[in-house]
Amino acid sequence: MSGYSFVLGDTEVQNKHFFYRVTGYLLIFLSVAQFVTMAISFVLHDRAFWNFLLAGTVTLSVGGVLVVRSGGAVKLKKRYLFLLTTLCWLSVCVFSALPLYLSVPGLSVTDAWFETVSAITTTGSTVLSGLDTMPKAVLLWRAILQWIGGIGIIVMAIAILPALKIGGMKLFKTESSDISEKILPRSSSLSGSILMVYLAISVAAAVSYYAGGMSLFDAVTHAMTSAATGGFANYDASFGHFNDKPWLLWFSSVWMALAALPFVLFVGMVRGDKWALLRDPQVKAFIAIVLVAAVLLSGYQMVHDERDWFSALTHSLFNVVSVITTCGYASEDYTLWGSMAVVLFFYLTFSGGCSGSTSGGLKIFRTQLSGYMLLKQLNLLIHPNAVRTQQYGGKKVDDSLLSAVLAFAFVYFATIAALALVLSMYNLDFVTALTGAATAVGNVGPGLGEVIGPAGNFASLPDGAKWWLTFGMLLGRLEILTMLLLFTPMYWRY
Amino acid sequence: MSGYSFVLGDTEVQNKHFFYRVTGYLLIFLSVAQFVTMAISFVLHDRAFWNFLLAGTVTLSVGGVLVVRSGGAVKLKKRYLFLLTTLCWLSVCVFSALPLYLSVPGLSVTDAWFETVSAITTTGSTVLSGLDTMPKAVLLWRAILQWIGGIGIIVMAIAILPALKIGGMKLFKTESSDISEKILPRSSSLSGSILMVYLAISVAAAVSYYAGGMSLFDAVTHAMTSAATGGFANYDASFGHFNDKPWLLWFSSVWMALAALPFVLFVGMVRGDKWALLRDPQVKAFIAIVLVAAVLLSGYQMVHDERDWFSALTHSLFNVVSVITTCGYASEDYTLWGSMAVVLFFYLTFSGGCSGSTSGGLKIFRTQLSGYMLLKQLNLLIHPNAVRTQQYGGKKVDDSLLSAVLAFAFVYFATIAALALVLSMYNLDFVTALTGAATAVGNVGPGLGEVIGPAGNFASLPDGAKWWLTFGMLLGRLEILTMLLLFTPMYWRY
Repeated sequence: MSGYSFVLGDTEVQNKHFFYRVTGYLLIFLSVAQFVTMAISFVLHDRAFWNFLLAGTVTLSVGGVLVVRSGGAVKLKKRYLFLLTTLCWLSVCVFSALPLYLSVPGLSVTDAWFETVSAITTTGSTVLSGLDTMPKAVLLWRAILQWIGGIGIIVMAIAILPALKIGGMKLFKTESSDISEKILPRSSSLSGSILMVYLAISVAAAVSYYAGGMSLFDAVTHAMTSAATGGFANYDASFGHFNDKPWLLWFSSVWMALAALPFVLFVGMVRGDKWALLRDPQVKAFIAIVLVAAVLLSGYQMVHDERDWFSALTHSLFNVVSVITTCGYASEDYTLWGSMAVVLFFYLTFSGGCSGSTSGGLKIFRTQLSGYMLLKQLNLLIHPNAVRTQQYGGKKVDDSLLSAVLAFAFVYFATIAALALVLSMYNLDFVTALTGAATAVGNVGPGLGEVIGPAGNFASLPDGAKWWLTFGMLLGRLEILTMLLLFTPMYWRY
Repeated sequence: MSGYSFVLGDTEVQNKHFFYRVTGYLLIFLSVAQFVTMAISFVLHDRAFWNFLLAGTVTLSVGGVLVVRSGGAVKLKKRYLFLLTTLCWLSVCVFSALPLYLSVPGLSVTDAWFETVSAITTTGSTVLSGLDTMPKAVLLWRAILQWIGGIGIIVMAIAILPALKIGGMKLFKTESSDISEKILPRSSSLSGSILMVYLAISVAAAVSYYAGGMSLFDAVTHAMTSAATGGFANYDASFGHFNDKPWLLWFSSVWMALAALPFVLFVGMVRGDKWALLRDPQVKAFIAIVLVAAVLLSGYQMVHDERDWFSALTHSLFNVVSVITTCGYASEDYTLWGSMAVVLFFYLTFSGGCSGSTSGGLKIFRTQLSGYMLLKQLNLLIHPNAVRTQQYGGKKVDDSLLSAVLAFAFVYFATIAALALVLSMYNLDFVTALTGAATAVGNVGPGLGEVIGPAGNFASLPDGAKWWLTFGMLLGRLEILTMLLLFTPMYWRY
């Protein structure tokens, strides 16, 4: 890509070419992933070789044509970043669905699309069953898609969203997120370091899984879906397949939790600031929520179900971490742990991990800042004229930032509410509609209830509901406003 | 009360006496209501006479002692208004529970408290069954409590809450809501006019119910619970008892809807501003939501259940109005109308009517202002430097007001979430816990699901859950922050 440059400017003469260029390179990158899967499929003799060859060729061709047609240096008006971001995710989804559609016998277009969007947005809801006997290349491809999705989220959270100032994200503006000059973060050492963190977590997870007794294939694929907090597993029983090796659940809890922390703090630690993680208010709250929920749930099981403490704690911690990080593995059907568990997991579905990680959801810092806002309002009721400077993790928090955060929280819940209403029109029952919408927008994976709960599967939903759910997943992954803006007349008005 | 004055000042020398005075007069007023019920009980020969005589005597005595002990002119620091408001509601609840406890055989203290708080907060959830054979005085007392609760809400919404600036209520500051001088609104002609509106709706409702075929007793009691948007009916089938006279459902829809509009606008209309109601953005949105929901639901029933349009529309409109106004009558089990109906009624439970009415919930204007805030944020994403003056119903809306509204919405949902979690610890199922919390804090009445749905009853819930629900009702009725503030250390710190 050297010799080309991506410049944001005020002219929109070459907007179209900018779109071609970025989408083209993305597809070429995607075709490489498809060819890699093809090669592994060849080695494993698993019937999917030709499908991936075909898909890779198509993707490479389209990507190549787009790049060639984009010409030389190109510019983009900053406002078109919203459109560009959305189109990039959509086009990757379309071309990633191709090999799935070709390789799984009897898979409908709807189901291929659902599974792919669920993968790339790192949601992890599945419509496939019989995973245990699926061609290995298909399982690998699902894992690779989640892993690529994870990269996409990190790049977006660091390089694009702060510049777009969505929902208080400007709080996390770093040197590399100033895109007034260059859009791709390759020039920045911070972004490179952050990708290294992602790689490190993935490799460490794979090694620990393999050492813990998984096959090499399972270790690598589950490492990818853990680091991406995606949640696809290679078995119908999800991560519960490994319940006979409880240490794997502990390893996985650690990797999911690490992948849900702000990656920029890991870089800080490597660069010498040893306590960067433990000083961060978002990280502290995240750890506190996980511990309280895990202790509550394991306590309940020890008292009511007379479960031994190690087993109770293992499964409580694993599933709490899995849902709050929006990973979405399940080790067993936690909706059988009593009413409190059901309500608690419902709330964790909304929470999400920390900003600047691969996790989805509302994000911890938004809940915290909403709480700060409330305290401020309570204080104002007693001291109407009090002026206080607000801080969050050492950064100044002004009123406009708080407003942005609260408005985001509002649109987050409103989106889930609207989606649930639409789903109910397909006659999904109350719990399925409500938790289906929440799990899609939060990019979590499992919902609640018999149909889409941790022991269920999304296959039986009506096609229309599946399309709406993928819309919800994309909305959630793009922090809602990026995509919602495209549906407003004011975005297109000049 | 002439000769006394209630003054808000900066000294807290006489705070205690101020509390005695206000609570004392309230209890004397309450004892009058108890003696009236006693007199009617005497006329109807319904076995409750002595109970109301006893309760009235106790209430009058306590009230009298408090007033006598309060001495002459008294002052109150403004910050103690929060405490005073809460204590007033609590003490009225305690002394109102007395005759219920005495008159209903086998009623536990918990159930008497639940029924009373549910009445006074105009929630309308009931633990009583066999209403059809209950002593008339008990039914009358429940209706009177709701009607008194309705007065309390209006006085609070007009005279106290705007001064406390809770959740954007200062938007509705009127000449009578400036309490820096006098706390009681008796001097203001506006407040008098507003009470007249309340009386007018009550009388009109009673006349129409009686003309429509109700007995005089039913007409009067249901008129009281309609005007208060309380929702207690005299029959286990709720308002469904009158389904053979469908016009009564239409009458009731009208009265509930009127009682959920801003009362100050009725006064404006009487004073010559004919279009005050239809110009108001809150009223317009309220009407729009009701119509859309009613049309959606009746359309669904006509298509799926082949119901005739008049019956479908009658019941759709009635139940939609009943839930959105937080009245809580039910004409039939609307949870059998399909999934969409269940989800829709769940949302209506949160909505509430207009501010400055007897209805509870989040209130329409808060949803609207949250939406405005979102639009503003979307606009800022495209035009970062745009400055726009914001208006709502002709009044200027500044950022601090929007922040207060959004913070209120946040605490509203957070309160419901916390209450639902507590309820789940009593092993209430997911739907019962979630909708029980929502219906209590919203002061609506029925929840969803088999236990507390429109065809259910709160009697079977565990005692602990009932106490928590009454806490939720009081929180909701006092706009949450009034009461929540009392639980913060900063309120008590000097």
